Amino acid sequence: MAIARGYAATDASQPLTPFTFERRAPNADDVVISIEYCGVCHSDIHQARNEWGFSKYPMVPGHEIVGTVSAVGSSVTKFKVGDKVGVGCFVDSCVGCATRDLDNEQYMPGLVQTYNDVEADGKTPTHGGYSDSIVVKEGYVLSIPDNLPLDAAAPLLCAGITLYSPLRHWNAGPGKKVAIVGMGGLGHMGVKLGAAMGADVTVLSQTLSKKEDGLKLGAREYYATSDAETFAKLAGTFDLIICTVGVAIDWNAYLGLLKVNGSMVLVGVPEHAVPVHAFSLIPGRRSLSGSMIGSIKETQEMLDFCGEHGIVSEIEKIDIQNINDAFERVVKSDVRYRFVIDMASLKA
Amino acid sequence: MAIARGYAATDASQPLTPFTFERRAPNADDVVISIEYCGVCHSDIHQARNEWGFSKYPMVPGHEIVGTVSAVGSSVTKFKVGDKVGVGCFVDSCVGCATRDLDNEQYMPGLVQTYNDVEADGKTPTHGGYSDSIVVKEGYVLSIPDNLPLDAAAPLLCAGITLYSPLRHWNAGPGKKVAIVGMGGLGHMGVKLGAAMGADVTVLSQTLSKKEDGLKLGAREYYATSDAETFAKLAGTFDLIICTVGVAIDWNAYLGLLKVNGSMVLVGVPEHAVPVHAFSLIPGRRSLSGSMIGSIKETQEMLDFCGEHGIVSEIEKIDIQNINDAFERVVKSDVRYRFVIDMASLKA
Repeated sequence: MAIARGYAATDASQPLTPFTFERRAPNADDVVISIEYCGVCHSDIHQARNEWGFSKYPMVPGHEIVGTVSAVGSSVTKFKVGDKVGVGCFVDSCVGCATRDLDNEQYMPGLVQTYNDVEADGKTPTHGGYSDSIVVKEGYVLSIPDNLPLDAAAPLLCAGITLYSPLRHWNAGPGKKVAIVGMGGLGHMGVKLGAAMGADVTVLSQTLSKKEDGLKLGAREYYATSDAETFAKLAGTFDLIICTVGVAIDWNAYLGLLKVNGSMVLVGVPEHAVPVHAFSLIPGRRSLSGSMIGSIKETQEMLDFCGEHGIVSEIEKIDIQNINDAFERVVKSDVRYRFVIDMASLKA
Repeated sequence: MAIARGYAATDASQPLTPFTFERRAPNADDVVISIEYCGVCHSDIHQARNEWGFSKYPMVPGHEIVGTVSAVGSSVTKFKVGDKVGVGCFVDSCVGCATRDLDNEQYMPGLVQTYNDVEADGKTPTHGGYSDSIVVKEGYVLSIPDNLPLDAAAPLLCAGITLYSPLRHWNAGPGKKVAIVGMGGLGHMGVKLGAAMGADVTVLSQTLSKKEDGLKLGAREYYATSDAETFAKLAGTFDLIICTVGVAIDWNAYLGLLKVNGSMVLVGVPEHAVPVHAFSLIPGRRSLSGSMIGSIKETQEMLDFCGEHGIVSEIEKIDIQNINDAFERVVKSDVRYRFVIDMASLKA
C-alpha cells in the first residue's frame, strides 16, 4: 500500500477538496505511475455532480492521465522506470467476459472505468488522475511518444481517442468531407486529427467566435449554425459528421447535411432524447450512430499517430487548487480548449 | 398515343373509380407493357389519400407492376414482344443530374416516380399500374425470371427490393443474426430473403398470431414485442434489425437488441419523429439508418436471386373492383401478406 494525495468530490453538491487515500502495492503485472498532469473532461463534472445518476463518493475524478513510471511489477515487460506513460478512461476490461474482444473492449460488459467504478474484485473503488499516483495493470498503460509535451498530451487520452476512433472507423481521409460539430475540448481535437488524416474538415459551431482558431488548427471551412443559411448551403455535403456537443440540437437538420450513405456520429451525450424523423434517414440511406472512446490498441495507435504528426491538445494549465473554478468555466464553455491540472501544485 | 384504362383517385377523400387516360406512343427506347398484375403497397394508400401531402389528382396508383411486353421502340435491345417484365417504384432517374450514380440512383435528385410524379419533361403526369398498360423507358424495365408465377412476383418490385437492398447493404448472410420487425407485406419478404441469404432470421412482431407463417417462411425464432420479456431476453443479440413498421415504436428499446457495431435500419415511415437517446447509440457503436427501395441494377439482381431461390410474395389476388375494400383491409393489417390486383378484371 502507498498513500496517495488528490482532490475528491465528497457528494454531488460540494466542491472538490483535498483527499488522501491508498493505492495498492503493485502486483506482478502492475505499473506504478507518478502523475504529472491530468486533463479536465466535461464528464468529470457530470460524474462529480452525479448528473448521470450513478456516482459513488468519495470520488477522485480524472481520466486524462500522464506521468512517469516510478515502479513496475515483476512480470512487466513493456514499461520501465522513467518511461512517459498515460492512462485513459478505463483500467481493466472484459472482466467476466466469456470472449474478450480487444478491438471493441470499450463496448464490452466488464469495463472497469478509471474512477467512479470498482476493480475486477468487485469491491475496491477506482480513483482517477486528480491525484499524485496511480497503479494500473500493464495492459491498460499507454506509451506517450517522446516528442509530445506531456502536459498537452494528457487530453489525448480521452478527448483525442474519442475523436480519433470514429474518424478512423468511418474512414476519414483524403477525398472525404468531414464536419465537426462543436469547437470545444473534443471538437478542436477532431479538427486536428481529421486534417492530419487528410480529410477536408469543416467546423459547424454556434457562432464564428472561434473561426480563426479552427482554420489555424486545420479546418478548411467554418460555419455558424446559428445562421439558417448554413443548413441550406451545406445540404448534402458531408460524408461524415461528428457531433461533439452535449446539449440537444436538431439532429434532423444535421442529417440533411450528409451525402448519400453518409453517417452522423454522436460522441456528446445530451441529457434527453432527441426526436428523429425516419425521413431524415431513409431518402439518402443515412445513418445516425454513436461512438465511445477506443480500445487500448486503438488508443496507442492514436498516440503514435499524434507523435508522427506532432498533435497535442490546446490547453490552459491550472493548479489543482483552482479545479472548482475550472469546472465552472468548462460548464460555460469558457476554455480554449482543455484545462490540464499541473500535479506539481499538489505539493504546494 | 394509346388509350389506357385503370382506376384512379380523384381527390384525397374519394374512393378509387374507373379512369380512362392516354399512354404515350413508344419512343425509340420505350417498352410497352400489357399489365397483368399489380401489387397493392401501403404507400399507394398514403398517396391516394394525400397523407404525405404532395398528391396530384387524378392519380393512378401502383408500382408493383408485372406483365408482358406488347411492343418495343426501334432502339430497344433488352426486351422483345412476349417477354415477362416488371416495373417498380420509378421510371426515370438522375434527370438533370450532373453525375449519374447508377448504384444509388434511388437516392439521387431527379428520380421520376412511377405515379404521382411528372416525366423528365417536367409536365406529363406519370400514372401507375392500376391500369391495363404502361410505356416505360427500356432502362427502367426489369426481367421477371421465367420460373416465378407472375402474380406473386409483382410485390417483389417494391416490397421485395425494399428488404433485399438493406439485407445486402448490411451484409446479411451466414453467421449473421437478423431481426425483422413487423410481419406484414414488407416483413414477410424480409424473412424469405434473409433466410435465403443464409442469415439467422428472427421475427419481432406485436403478437404471435403469425408465428406459424413466420417459421414456415424461414424464420428460426419469433417473438412478441408486446411481451416485455422479449427485450430483456434478446438484449445484444442482433447484427442487423430491419424495421418495417410504419407506426411510431420505441426505437431505443430495439437499439438495445443490437450487438456492438450493429445497425437498425428503417424502411417503414412513422408519421412523426421518434425520440432517440444518444445512450442508445454510443455504448455499442450502434447505428440507426434508413433505406429506400434499390437501384434498377440491384432490383434486377434481387429478381434473379428470387428466381434462383424460388422466392415470391404470399398474396391474396383481388379484382380491381374491390380495390377500395382492399385499401381498408391493408390499413387494418388484414392481409396475408400482399394484395395483388388481377388486371384481367378490368375487362369485366
